[in-house]
Amino acid sequence: MKLAKTFAYIKKDLIEMESVLEDTIKSENDTLHHASLQLLKAGGKRLRPIFVLLASMFGETDKQQIKKVASALELIHMASLVHDDVIDDSNVRRGAPTVKANWDNQIAMLTGDYIFAKALDQFTDIDEPRAHQLLAKTMMELTLGEIEQIKDKYNVDQHLRLYLRRIRRKTALLISSSCQIGAIVSNTTADVERTLFKYGYYIGMSYQIIDDILDFTGTEKELGKPAGSDLIQGNVTLPVLYAMEDVEFKQQLKIVFEQRDSLSKQSYYPIIEYIKQSNAIDRARDLSDAYLKKAYNSLGNLPDNKAKKALEEIANYIGKRKI
Amino acid sequence: MKLAKTFAYIKKDLIEMESVLEDTIKSENDTLHHASLQLLKAGGKRLRPIFVLLASMFGETDKQQIKKVASALELIHMASLVHDDVIDDSNVRRGAPTVKANWDNQIAMLTGDYIFAKALDQFTDIDEPRAHQLLAKTMMELTLGEIEQIKDKYNVDQHLRLYLRRIRRKTALLISSSCQIGAIVSNTTADVERTLFKYGYYIGMSYQIIDDILDFTGTEKELGKPAGSDLIQGNVTLPVLYAMEDVEFKQQLKIVFEQRDSLSKQSYYPIIEYIKQSNAIDRARDLSDAYLKKAYNSLGNLPDNKAKKALEEIANYIGKRKI
Repeated sequence: MKLAKTFAYIKKDLIEMESVLEDTIKSENDTLHHASLQLLKAGGKRLRPIFVLLASMFGETDKQQIKKVASALELIHMASLVHDDVIDDSNVRRGAPTVKANWDNQIAMLTGDYIFAKALDQFTDIDEPRAHQLLAKTMMELTLGEIEQIKDKYNVDQHLRLYLRRIRRKTALLISSSCQIGAIVSNTTADVERTLFKYGYYIGMSYQIIDDILDFTGTEKELGKPAGSDLIQGNVTLPVLYAMEDVEFKQQLKIVFEQRDSLSKQSYYPIIEYIKQSNAIDRARDLSDAYLKKAYNSLGNLPDNKAKKALEEIANYIGKRKI
Repeated sequence: MKLAKTFAYIKKDLIEMESVLEDTIKSENDTLHHASLQLLKAGGKRLRPIFVLLASMFGETDKQQIKKVASALELIHMASLVHDDVIDDSNVRRGAPTVKANWDNQIAMLTGDYIFAKALDQFTDIDEPRAHQLLAKTMMELTLGEIEQIKDKYNVDQHLRLYLRRIRRKTALLISSSCQIGAIVSNTTADVERTLFKYGYYIGMSYQIIDDILDFTGTEKELGKPAGSDLIQGNVTLPVLYAMEDVEFKQQLKIVFEQRDSLSKQSYYPIIEYIKQSNAIDRARDLSDAYLKKAYNSLGNLPDNKAKKALEEIANYIGKRKI
């Protein structure tokens, strides 16, 4: 909810959306109820609902409907996080134990399935086939991104293109779809809709790149999980890709990856240190900045209003965020 | 596809639906493509698509749309099977290795997610909010059924009511929803829609009871998995519930469940034998027959046509099926 402070005028909607979220995940089943609630209470920036709400301000909005759409998109994000934690075998997220850590992988899988179904249920009021189509396609892309991430793990011979496609699917499309769906359900012009989709896409790409940078530069307290976790899990992110242009480093990483089953986490520390001190971090930040600039510039065509101002502020905030 | 032989006049639609299914699960991602295709090719009775097609014959049908709906419902069933196999740690289904056996739990989870998303994508053409609502609610109930099944495992102190609620959620509702959605998208009268939903519900209840009986009485070849698998996994099904009315048997089962971690599969054989030779199987069959009778009788109000005849035949077939 950090971002909400920046634009007080959607704060009320966000607070109301939060209670829609809380009502939605209620379940007669104790396990599902507690697992979902734990996830919700662990927080998060509610970035997707914020984009739905802001995008809707460029058209005619039915506030009740928009809050449902906003919460549906957050629920899909939450469900994908629960399944992610199963895949990455993660025990901590946002400083709190994950569903799979507190219960087990099976319960986490079903909790994710349940939250997905709840999200769809929230979405069924929306009488806009295009919004449904976009949501379904985005969910397919999300899964494709996840499966590509598994496939590309521990692979030092991959290129920038593969990384960009992965983060587009894994992160950027759900954010761009949040913007576009907010536009669709409030009947904006086709131009505005296209602009918001593009903006969301650029923001999403930058957002994931910053996430991948913070995995190296953040403290455990800021990240809510140990630094370098992504690398230790075999994820070859943008800073790693840049650092691997040094052939010796690439060879060293390759050996560590190959011997990972017999190595401790500590074996990764020199590699993490190397990346932090190389120019890889700066270069990754440059690419993120380039996306943010595109995001910012894409807004030029939009009518001037408070929502546009907020979207500009977000584009400025994303690059500076520490968590 | 066994049932298709009984009513040749929907055979063409079913074959076409099958190719819709095959086209739908195609994926640019090799793993997803092969995992989904393997599941599709392992067969299945295509019961849910059959019900969609038959139900649609009581109204005005758009054939292309109906085939999409039919395939969407089969995909949801397939996705839930893939996730089931993760939960039950099953390596064999329909005589073929499961996705989790051929790949692993993570890939199986994502394959399920992907097939769910594909199902939704198929469904987005349907401009009937009630159909979307029913589908989302059914998916929630499916997950609730699964999580209840986990919770109730190895619990010898449960009653018939709990079992019936579980199989309603786990099996019956997706079948009744297939019938009802077929009716909704073809604009039948409200009466016909209600009748078809009820029919599907009774059929679904009977179908799961027969499944639970066959787990004891079927051969490994017929079942495509070892007999008694459900019990060995701790699932307390209807025959087990009836058999437990014998207090000594209940005590014996309780001990085996308590000591399961140190026991081999063979320890379950006397228990399985006892159930097979007790009257529990006959009593379970009686309950299934009662549901089938209700299903059959519920059809009385429907206009006479080929579809009604087929639904009657299915009600007769379900009780006699061996696989």
